[in-house]
Amino acid sequence: MIRIFKLKNIISIKDFERKDIDYILDEAAKLENIAKSKETCDELKGKILGLMFFEPSTRTKLSFETAMKRLSGECIGFENSGSSSVSKGESIADTAKMFEGYSDALVIRHELEGVSKFISDIVDVPVINAGDGAGQHPTQTLLDLYTIKKEIGKIDDLKIALIGDLKFGRTVHSLSNALCLYNNVKIYLVSPKKLKMPQEVLHDLDKTNINYEEVESIEEIIDDVDVLYVTRIQKERFGDINDYLKIKGAYIVNKKMLEGKNAIVMHPLPRIDEIDGDVDDTKYNKYFNQAFNAVPVRMAILKTLIKNNPK
Amino acid sequence: MIRIFKLKNIISIKDFERKDIDYILDEAAKLENIAKSKETCDELKGKILGLMFFEPSTRTKLSFETAMKRLSGECIGFENSGSSSVSKGESIADTAKMFEGYSDALVIRHELEGVSKFISDIVDVPVINAGDGAGQHPTQTLLDLYTIKKEIGKIDDLKIALIGDLKFGRTVHSLSNALCLYNNVKIYLVSPKKLKMPQEVLHDLDKTNINYEEVESIEEIIDDVDVLYVTRIQKERFGDINDYLKIKGAYIVNKKMLEGKNAIVMHPLPRIDEIDGDVDDTKYNKYFNQAFNAVPVRMAILKTLIKNNPK
Amino acid sequence: MIRIFKLKNIISIKDFERKDIDYILDEAAKLENIAKSKETCDELKGKILGLMFFEPSTRTKLSFETAMKRLSGECIGFENSGSSSVSKGESIADTAKMFEGYSDALVIRHELEGVSKFISDIVDVPVINAGDGAGQHPTQTLLDLYTIKKEIGKIDDLKIALIGDLKFGRTVHSLSNALCLYNNVKIYLVSPKKLKMPQEVLHDLDKTNINYEEVESIEEIIDDVDVLYVTRIQKERFGDINDYLKIKGAYIVNKKMLEGKNAIVMHPLPRIDEIDGDVDDTKYNKYFNQAFNAVPVRMAILKTLIKNNPK
Repeated sequence: MIRIFKLKNIISIKDFERKDIDYILDEAAKLENIAKSKETCDELKGKILGLMFFEPSTRTKLSFETAMKRLSGECIGFENSGSSSVSKGESIADTAKMFEGYSDALVIRHELEGVSKFISDIVDVPVINAGDGAGQHPTQTLLDLYTIKKEIGKIDDLKIALIGDLKFGRTVHSLSNALCLYNNVKIYLVSPKKLKMPQEVLHDLDKTNINYEEVESIEEIIDDVDVLYVTRIQKERFGDINDYLKIKGAYIVNKKMLEGKNAIVMHPLPRIDEIDGDVDDTKYNKYFNQAFNAVPVRMAILKTLIKNNPK
Repeated sequence: MIRIFKLKNIISIKDFERKDIDYILDEAAKLENIAKSKETCDELKGKILGLMFFEPSTRTKLSFETAMKRLSGECIGFENSGSSSVSKGESIADTAKMFEGYSDALVIRHELEGVSKFISDIVDVPVINAGDGAGQHPTQTLLDLYTIKKEIGKIDDLKIALIGDLKFGRTVHSLSNALCLYNNVKIYLVSPKKLKMPQEVLHDLDKTNINYEEVESIEEIIDDVDVLYVTRIQKERFGDINDYLKIKGAYIVNKKMLEGKNAIVMHPLPRIDEIDGDVDDTKYNKYFNQAFNAVPVRMAILKTLIKNNPK
Repeated sequence: MIRIFKLKNIISIKDFERKDIDYILDEAAKLENIAKSKETCDELKGKILGLMFFEPSTRTKLSFETAMKRLSGECIGFENSGSSSVSKGESIADTAKMFEGYSDALVIRHELEGVSKFISDIVDVPVINAGDGAGQHPTQTLLDLYTIKKEIGKIDDLKIALIGDLKFGRTVHSLSNALCLYNNVKIYLVSPKKLKMPQEVLHDLDKTNINYEEVESIEEIIDDVDVLYVTRIQKERFGDINDYLKIKGAYIVNKKMLEGKNAIVMHPLPRIDEIDGDVDDTKYNKYFNQAFNAVPVRMAILKTLIKNNPK
């Protein structure tokens, strides 16, 4: 049998070719009925997923657990390093070697960039990066792409606005990289001057054919886009609270500005107030679907990696 | 097939008719062998229960987990809001929508009355109230009734003393409401003046035919009752510690006062010192059985709600 | 059927005869393929293990969970008493009675010696001591013995050095007791004067035929031993940090001192710096294998106790 999906570890979306992404999205679609609890399966019965969450992340952790359990697999792990051996002074390498012995795959969340890569170099089981610092969060990007494709029917030929904190938000970094693999996509980068997309990411975009434009308010692009991908602006990023209060309004999406438009609204969640509650009950709201899509997409990833790389 | 049990959510025992309670108690009896690990079953294989415990509650959480796992189901969740997205400022509604996507039913514990009801209004999966503030704790009441019925053979025609903190104790509020559905029951309300049953609950009782009487010591009723339902009196409820020390003794059950009597002793647990340890090894002790009964009763609830309300 | 393994509870390694240890080691060997995820089994399907960890212990807890889940069983429990009913003032006895009702076996970790024994006296399900204070940690000893037997082929006729903090380290106490059951074993007790093996343990050794010798540095014994069992020396044990710094070097194992030798290096983990990282990639390193061996050995224990003692 030819193995289509060749990656052993999911560290960065930059390691993906378009066909790798397509493979995961197709697998996810096939697993939706199980994710929705309409069918059951024993795909990963007897398998164990090791969750090493050095920083807490409810949503990511719960969706990986749900994905594993819908496939009849099991989970072990910790949710913050305070309650683990790490607090006794153990090195991350030793902790990872222990988890390698107990698990069929590892999911790593850490506040420092590069930790997942480091662990993938010293263990034999597949490693999934569930967010490392301001670095990558590739499985979030996969579920974002899955949501776009499912809701609009394609990813090629779309105009997508990334809104909010583009400087520190790792989800928009990963998503920008991934969109470069698609045809005729235009990205609007919508952020305050202080929180613009980092030069490194812009350099990545420049190396491809992708069309992008930096703007400073949602108003400028709302008539032209297919997707509004909203992220949170943390007021702590501004030295002076008045600077924050002055610009805040330009990055809040509400029902009124959406009326008559075709755009869908997405958000990696949790949200605070950057999407007004009045959007929740409209057809524009796709962020709750997006939250659910974490399950079939992570099921596809777990199934693929564990089946392709038996211990 | 006619569905006998019509409730989709378990929010308050006041939503129950007697036939609803009887249905759950009968189902629980059928599931006892599985609860006791004498048989296994796959009733909820592939299903996931979401546990949203905004305040900790070891006993309630563990028994729900046990119930789900004895039915071959799985659990996800958090045990206090500190480690959840809630601590990042996410609304309860958004957290609940996430859990709805991942789970087949939700169990909610919160320090504020009404949170379970609120969540049941915005999600499509069944919601179970596992205690909200000084409000209701309906599944505790169902297991209390199950224990009475199992130990004495009936609930009708009994004399039941509710003892201790009747003001703040939600278990005695729920239980009082439920007992009104039975015939010829007499309730003794045994508490210090400061911790008497609230007027609202007494009004509920007045609207029915139930017979009740307020007294101030166990001594007055010990010869006449079938059930002593003991709860804890927290000394913090008394401004002056001396007030507490003066009355404390009247609300402690011990072996000596039980000798020659027919009453059974129950307690929702955890207990501190309101039941003397010398009762543990007597026939009067039914509080450990009662703790176990949480499992078959919660199994009956989970099975019924999840089977009746597929996603 | 004759039941070979007669113990109902695993409290102290001193309760074991040699045939009991051999039985568990043989069972563990048979379960290795399942532990390694090469096969699946349903041995403990529907069974629940109660984990009462009054103090945290990542490694022990995760390996018990892994063991239970590889056998298709489930776990419930808590990881520190702060989040349990214990924090509401409940007695350990009441907490244990609750767990007895929900579980098929209990694993206890507590900072006080004797707690596991106490609980085993008041519940009907099997109880496993997962470390109590400076007392025993019998399942660690079983996996240590399993590792020695697997790596060297036997336990009889070996020379084994126990190194580091022999005063407070419970793993070396349990292991010393167990080695007395084997033939022609010599133990080297390698520690600073301040952290020598306690008199009680030496008295235990004196009662048997075992040969032992107390020395103060690894150098003295490195040419003569088959096993270096290294443990951590906590600098807090020394009043004066300079006393610690002076002796520290004599208890660190590195690659250079091992070259040309036949010894294997073991460690209960977590390690800090008492085994140099340069040993990790050598043939001497057996501590990562030892960490993995926790799984098949604890599987053997759980399977044996739960199958032998149905509820």
